[in-house]
Amino acid sequence: MGAEAEPEPDAEVKSVIRPTDEAALQLARRLIGEARYGALSVLEPETDHPFASRVLVGTDTDGVPVILASTLATHTKALLADPRCALLLGEPGRGDPLAWPRITVLCDAERIEHDSESDSRTRSRFLRRHPKAKLYASFRDFAFFRLVPKSASLNGGFGRAYIISGDELLSISSTDTG
Amino acid sequence: MGAEAEPEPDAEVKSVIRPTDEAALQLARRLIGEARYGALSVLEPETDHPFASRVLVGTDTDGVPVILASTLATHTKALLADPRCALLLGEPGRGDPLAWPRITVLCDAERIEHDSESDSRTRSRFLRRHPKAKLYASFRDFAFFRLVPKSASLNGGFGRAYIISGDELLSISSTDTG
Repeated sequence: MGAEAEPEPDAEVKSVIRPTDEAALQLARRLIGEARYGALSVLEPETDHPFASRVLVGTDTDGVPVILASTLATHTKALLADPRCALLLGEPGRGDPLAWPRITVLCDAERIEHDSESDSRTRSRFLRRHPKAKLYASFRDFAFFRLVPKSASLNGGFGRAYIISGDELLSISSTDTG
Repeated sequence: MGAEAEPEPDAEVKSVIRPTDEAALQLARRLIGEARYGALSVLEPETDHPFASRVLVGTDTDGVPVILASTLATHTKALLADPRCALLLGEPGRGDPLAWPRITVLCDAERIEHDSESDSRTRSRFLRRHPKAKLYASFRDFAFFRLVPKSASLNGGFGRAYIISGDELLSISSTDTG
């Protein structure tokens, strides 16, 4: 991955937005489709202060990221008060963390009703990816949320920046399998 | 629930805030002092939509987290418009990502003026931790920011949750060396 490339330092760090090409879309798909966890950015209720927390991540059949959240958690209270959130996905490996690709997806969260068809579908997909979540996924104070993408900011490594629409993201993520 | 007792799974995942003890403070210190990078949560300018991005992290001599940011980056424009931010630190290893400790520090960002004493001090500390950042740290469109902690939410793993004040965090972080 981009960790090996050696562009000019000057050009490398300037975050010029590049035209979205097939490689960028594939990278975005991979980052969302393969994510096990990510950082969820929300607005703290009442103060609207930015807040961030780690969440396990799955996807729905249409490629929409899915999280499982306890009503006791700050991020859940936040999403119920204001559904706007951002999900940072793509974990770095060895070497410079900024040389590794990551994507920030701006989303609106939708709570999935218990015992609905969506609940059954997202639950089985999520637990396939995260078997240990079975320990608490059935508690009634936990619920799944679809984080519906509106747009995304893809960084393929220093300066390789792209803006991707929610539509582009979903049409390319729908082949994901779990 | 007894904080010391071996909790039922049911109780374990409920994020009851525990009284802050020395072990929690040490863990918080380690997570901040050893972080190489983290997720920065900010408010997108104009929309106030939550945004998240990956940043390299260092510390100042008083333990305050420090980042190096390009004025071209969304998070920099955001911090200049509204200094409130959150920094999620503590990366998971193998196994369940939620079993690994992490800390969310709510901060106010302070831009460090170029060529000031603070700039010289934070620059040398930051570049000691991140030698590759020398490639771009001297560009005039980059600047260091101190992310001054106001409070922190520590999660030592499922349900082991603590709230730590900014003062507690700084007094315990000041022994960090770089």
